[in-house]
Amino acid sequence: MKDDSTICAISTPPGTGAISIIRLSGENAISIVDRVFLIHNNKKNLSQKKPNTVYYGSILYQDQIIDQVLLTFFKAPKSYTGENVVEISCHGSIYLQQRIMEILITSGARNAEPGEFTLRAFLNGKMDLSQSEAVADLIGSRSKSLHEAALKQMRGGFSTEISILRQKLLNFSSLIELELDFSEEDVNFADRNELKGQIEKIQDIVDKLLESFKYGNALKNGVPVAIVGKPNVGKSTILNILLNDEKAIVSDIPGTTRDIIEDTVNIQGILFRFIDTAGIRDSLDKLELLGIERTFNNIRKASIVLLVVDANETPEDISQQIINLDLQAEQKLIVITNKIDLVKNEVVLNSFKDLLVSNKYHVVSISAKKNLHIDILINLLVESVKYKTQLFNDIIVINLRHFESLKATYEAGKRVLDGVENNISGDLLSQSIREMTYNLGAITGEISTDEILGNIFKNFCIGK
Amino acid sequence: MKDDSTICAISTPPGTGAISIIRLSGENAISIVDRVFLIHNNKKNLSQKKPNTVYYGSILYQDQIIDQVLLTFFKAPKSYTGENVVEISCHGSIYLQQRIMEILITSGARNAEPGEFTLRAFLNGKMDLSQSEAVADLIGSRSKSLHEAALKQMRGGFSTEISILRQKLLNFSSLIELELDFSEEDVNFADRNELKGQIEKIQDIVDKLLESFKYGNALKNGVPVAIVGKPNVGKSTILNILLNDEKAIVSDIPGTTRDIIEDTVNIQGILFRFIDTAGIRDSLDKLELLGIERTFNNIRKASIVLLVVDANETPEDISQQIINLDLQAEQKLIVITNKIDLVKNEVVLNSFKDLLVSNKYHVVSISAKKNLHIDILINLLVESVKYKTQLFNDIIVINLRHFESLKATYEAGKRVLDGVENNISGDLLSQSIREMTYNLGAITGEISTDEILGNIFKNFCIGK
Repeated sequence: MKDDSTICAISTPPGTGAISIIRLSGENAISIVDRVFLIHNNKKNLSQKKPNTVYYGSILYQDQIIDQVLLTFFKAPKSYTGENVVEISCHGSIYLQQRIMEILITSGARNAEPGEFTLRAFLNGKMDLSQSEAVADLIGSRSKSLHEAALKQMRGGFSTEISILRQKLLNFSSLIELELDFSEEDVNFADRNELKGQIEKIQDIVDKLLESFKYGNALKNGVPVAIVGKPNVGKSTILNILLNDEKAIVSDIPGTTRDIIEDTVNIQGILFRFIDTAGIRDSLDKLELLGIERTFNNIRKASIVLLVVDANETPEDISQQIINLDLQAEQKLIVITNKIDLVKNEVVLNSFKDLLVSNKYHVVSISAKKNLHIDILINLLVESVKYKTQLFNDIIVINLRHFESLKATYEAGKRVLDGVENNISGDLLSQSIREMTYNLGAITGEISTDEILGNIFKNFCIGK
Repeated sequence: MKDDSTICAISTPPGTGAISIIRLSGENAISIVDRVFLIHNNKKNLSQKKPNTVYYGSILYQDQIIDQVLLTFFKAPKSYTGENVVEISCHGSIYLQQRIMEILITSGARNAEPGEFTLRAFLNGKMDLSQSEAVADLIGSRSKSLHEAALKQMRGGFSTEISILRQKLLNFSSLIELELDFSEEDVNFADRNELKGQIEKIQDIVDKLLESFKYGNALKNGVPVAIVGKPNVGKSTILNILLNDEKAIVSDIPGTTRDIIEDTVNIQGILFRFIDTAGIRDSLDKLELLGIERTFNNIRKASIVLLVVDANETPEDISQQIINLDLQAEQKLIVITNKIDLVKNEVVLNSFKDLLVSNKYHVVSISAKKNLHIDILINLLVESVKYKTQLFNDIIVINLRHFESLKATYEAGKRVLDGVENNISGDLLSQSIREMTYNLGAITGEISTDEILGNIFKNFCIGK
């Protein structure tokens, strides 16, 4: 996987802007740039100058000035990739970006593959694999919550957790392998009860991480929310209020518009995705009769279900609707009693006296039309997600590959526990423990293959 | 126009990328960043460190790490704007760019207006007005030729030319104004013949610059080319070959696709725009009969007309088609005899013997279908534009405002020459000469108003 060519790429977003950055990395990065860069009012060339300093000068090609640029260089190993790195800050026209790339390639660099800078950082030991993957997630993050999870992972929080687990397993592994050397003597260096206790502790942590992926995935793609209720209770109005809120927030951010997926909304830093409940919305009361599979599937996909009822509906009717929803324990239900502007306060309170005592769901009384108590609804939505963050001690798995490695770890762990229970031999135990350490090592990249690396970095953007 | 607030903006193209740059300028740029930036492994803050150096560290807000960034600062007056400048190189997610902007604004900066960095550079004497305008043209340039013209202007070539003219005029102005002081004595300090000769020289140069604008404008928007000819001579095939050539070139440039205007093609660094000749293409033979105004208008708009004929048409017929086109002297005509693969060479040569002697147009024999001699056609197109560059001594006016100032200069110059001819009094001459110097000064910004500046910089992109 390692090669000693010098790579270059446009590292800023594609298109026209005030400034663009072209980045080179590799042993010859500085000497290649030296051929085409002239420091302003200075006879020396780059390799005679100090690194980590900004130089003003011109990119020249065949004695013609192509652009006036700012340039910085970093000397190996003190750079992002651990190699010699040069960053050229040029005028942000598409023509110039392309022209300077051409000149660099003519002078000996080659186009970087997607993620190749970060791949090199990994190969040169500047970061582990899960940190590298967090870089891509950080760049792609569309919300505060995902950004925080990715930044934490990039800074090594997740890697540390995994490494501690792996170290414990490695200790047991060596003890058990020691047993195999003395197999005739039938001694157990590794205490089986202690092993069982430790593996159970590890399984607990792995299980929690696995569970956190569901949440991490929701952060990435939006926490799935279903809005259900009888016709004309105001579901669309509520949805529009929530969506409009977002539009006002993002409209100032250049380039975001194209990223907005229909019915996705970023509220207080958390991405919510309103899953398609067309067909549910207007048929909830007939749910039992129709029993539409698709409708139920959609409700099942939701982490949060907003049941909208009219403030004039009877508590019995509402209770029946809740039962009809047939929610799972991990699904959060918020009952919204809409149109409170049309009823007297006492009526609402009386009507929901019974409902309010439930600890299975929250009830919020609003008027979508008059914009009453929408802030309370929004807080409930946000709080029900934040509550989960705390559950996972702030370490959240956001990467499918990590999820799969953790799952394999958990499966192997179950085999270890079964084995201890059934008193199986050390070499079989040892094999399952090795599987656990292998899968944990794959997450941080202590164990990796070219194929794994290729799959990971091809999904990066070019220039990173 | 000058204010001492500190401005900030995202200076890289909008969207997601590996890296984005957020730039601040103003007296407090460094102290604002000091509040939110922590240098890695270092207790000192930014204001105690050396400028023009890259620092690695974290953007913090309320004790939370927002991103890990590279940061450079420049101290006034040694910066682009002439003020304190900080450049933050952060991870290129839209969320992060927006978040860091928010934090900087909370900490005392404000959103920069379009072009405000360059406006400040102008106000602080880092560049003159025509150089500032060239920055915007450089960023917007879509072709090599426009890029070269803009870069030359940014580096001061055009400003020097204008300043020399203006200086000559100022000398005459003072001599004539001296005459006014001695008006009773009826002396002429400024020799009228010398004045006439000098103004004529200036008028020549201004006239050439005015003429160059037509070309500069073509570089900006594409050199207008009309393809005309009888039905089925292969016009569309030729157009497609020229357009496809371009598509192959630009497909590697991220972000260019959306900039491609239908029927605009960049050939060897020059932008050509194939003007709408639908309606001409198939009706050229009936031109005399139909006399469609629109058709003629479109042909008149073209700098270059490609008349496509079938290699089997008679020279008389072709000559008649050329006459029908009714081209102006400055319009370039290229006669393309297509389908030479279908006729014998001798036939082609015989047929065009007479045509070839003309020096009013070029003839090129091609086969669009077999891709024969297309390279010759392309060279002819490119050469006919390049020839013009040399005419203008490489200084080309690309800016409408400059064109208008030059026009006003020329009009005032005519009044001076008329005045000298008619022996009018020194004070009237002086007034016209002042008009000339005023208009030339407006180009470089030696004379400017807030309104002029506002109009110029509002068209810049944000962050420049």
